[in-house]
Amino acid sequence: MTRMLVDGRADGRVSPLDRGLLYGDGLFETIAVLDGRPRFLDWHFERLADGAGRLGLPPPDLERLRSEIGEVAAAPRAVVKLVLTRGIGARGYRPPRPAAPTRIVFASDWPAGHAPVAAAAARLGWCRTRLGRNPALAGLKHLNRLEQVLARSEWDDADLDEGLMCDDRGRVIAATQANLFAKIGGRWLTPRLDECGVAGIMRRAFRAWSAERGAPVEERDLAVADVESASALLVTNALIGAWPAGTLAGRPLAADPDAAAFNAWLAGQ
Amino acid sequence: MTRMLVDGRADGRVSPLDRGLLYGDGLFETIAVLDGRPRFLDWHFERLADGAGRLGLPPPDLERLRSEIGEVAAAPRAVVKLVLTRGIGARGYRPPRPAAPTRIVFASDWPAGHAPVAAAAARLGWCRTRLGRNPALAGLKHLNRLEQVLARSEWDDADLDEGLMCDDRGRVIAATQANLFAKIGGRWLTPRLDECGVAGIMRRAFRAWSAERGAPVEERDLAVADVESASALLVTNALIGAWPAGTLAGRPLAADPDAAAFNAWLAGQ
Repeated sequence: MTRMLVDGRADGRVSPLDRGLLYGDGLFETIAVLDGRPRFLDWHFERLADGAGRLGLPPPDLERLRSEIGEVAAAPRAVVKLVLTRGIGARGYRPPRPAAPTRIVFASDWPAGHAPVAAAAARLGWCRTRLGRNPALAGLKHLNRLEQVLARSEWDDADLDEGLMCDDRGRVIAATQANLFAKIGGRWLTPRLDECGVAGIMRRAFRAWSAERGAPVEERDLAVADVESASALLVTNALIGAWPAGTLAGRPLAADPDAAAFNAWLAGQ
Repeated sequence: MTRMLVDGRADGRVSPLDRGLLYGDGLFETIAVLDGRPRFLDWHFERLADGAGRLGLPPPDLERLRSEIGEVAAAPRAVVKLVLTRGIGARGYRPPRPAAPTRIVFASDWPAGHAPVAAAAARLGWCRTRLGRNPALAGLKHLNRLEQVLARSEWDDADLDEGLMCDDRGRVIAATQANLFAKIGGRWLTPRLDECGVAGIMRRAFRAWSAERGAPVEERDLAVADVESASALLVTNALIGAWPAGTLAGRPLAADPDAAAFNAWLAGQ
C-alpha cells in the first residue's frame, strides 16, 4: 500500500508536463522509517538541499517536508520516498526562473526480507553496464537513473542480490542501489564519488562510525582487481544498513565483524 | 495551449510512481507538424522502436501512436511530443517484466520565431557543462536530460541562441537541443554519437540530403579548435531544420548556401 502526498495533497497527481518526467530534472531521497521515526533525516535533508543548490532549484521547505513525511509514514516501519522536481516550465530544456518545484512524498511498506539488516550475507556480482562520468552530477541523488536501471536489468535470477558497477575507465564505483566498502590491508576503503555515483546516507553513517572508532574509511580509486582481492566487502544503503557480502561472483568471502558492529550501533540511532 | 492524451485518454494523468518520473526510465520524440502533417514520422518511429529495444521496453504500437498524434495535432502547425515510459513497477531499479509502458502524446503551439527555419542566423556559444559518455545510452532520445538542462541554464540573455557541448574528453558533440555540422576543408563534418549525444532526425535528414547530392557528411571526432576553424557551422533539429550560425562566441561566420538549399528541400518534404 502506498500513502502519498503531491504538493501536500492526498489526491494530487503529477502533470505529464512536469520536468521531473520530461527530463529527470529533479532529486529524490529514500528514507528508512523505523519505530515510527525517519532515520538520518537531517542528513537526507542536507543532501537534498545541497542537490537543489547544485541543480539551481529553490531551497526546499524542509519543515514542511518533515511534516509531510510524518503524515505518510503512518506505520511503525516504512520506506518513505521524497521526490523534488523543477515543476512545469515552457517547452525546452531552459529552466523556468523562478521554478515552482513539485514535491512528492510517499510511503511504501517495509520490504520483506530486510530486517532492516538482512539475515543472509549478500551475493554480489559484476554488472556490464558502465557509469558515465560527470562531476556536475556526481554524488547527487538525481532522477537520471537509466544507468542503474540497465544494470539492474542484467539479472533476473534470485541467486544474486546486488551488482557492482564500474565507470567507463573500469574503476569500481558502487552497487546498483548501494555504496560499496572493501576491506583491503586491514582497512575499509570506499570509491571516490567525485565523477559519478551517489553519495549515500548510509555510506556517510558508516564512515562517521568508523572514524569515531579511530579507523577512518579511506576514499580511493578501486580497480576490479582491488575489489576482488579484498578480505571483506559490504554494501550500504538507507534500508539495508551495512550488508556484508558472502560471495563475489560466486567466490566466498569471510564475514567481517565490523558490519554486525555497525548494524548494532545503527539499531540504536 | 496544450492538447494531450495519456494512454489514449484526454483526462489521463501520470502516476507519481511512474518510472519515467522516478528514474527517467523512458524515451521521447519531438515531431514537427507542418501543414497538418507530422514530418519524418517514420524516422521518429524508427528511432523510438530502436530505443525501446535498447532499453528493453516492449515494441511501441506505432499505428496507435500515429492516430493519437493526428488527434492532438489539430492545428496546421504544431509541435508534438511523444513520451514513452516503462510505466509503474515495484520499488527499486529492477524493471517490471513484462512492463506496461505509459504513453503520453501532446501538442504545443508552434514556437514564435521558428519559420520553421529561423530568419536570423544562429548565435552560438560554448557551454561549460560536459556530457558524460556511455555507449549504452548514446544516440537515444531518453528521458535522462539533466546535462542538457544544466547546460541550457548557463545563459539567460537573449544574445545567444544555442550552446555547444563537449564530452569529458573535450570533443565537441552537439548543441543543447540540436546536432552540429561544421564545414572544414570544403566538407561537412558532424560529431560521432557512439558515446554520447542524441542521433537527431534532422541530422539524419541533412546527411541523407547531402549524400544524395554526392557530398556525404563525414562523422568524425571534432575538437574545439576544429569547430573554431570551420568556414561554416549549422545546427539541426526537428523544428528549426538547418540553422546556419552567424557567430560562434561572437566571431562572425560566413553563411553557407547549403543550409538554405537544404531548407528549401525540407519545405517540400
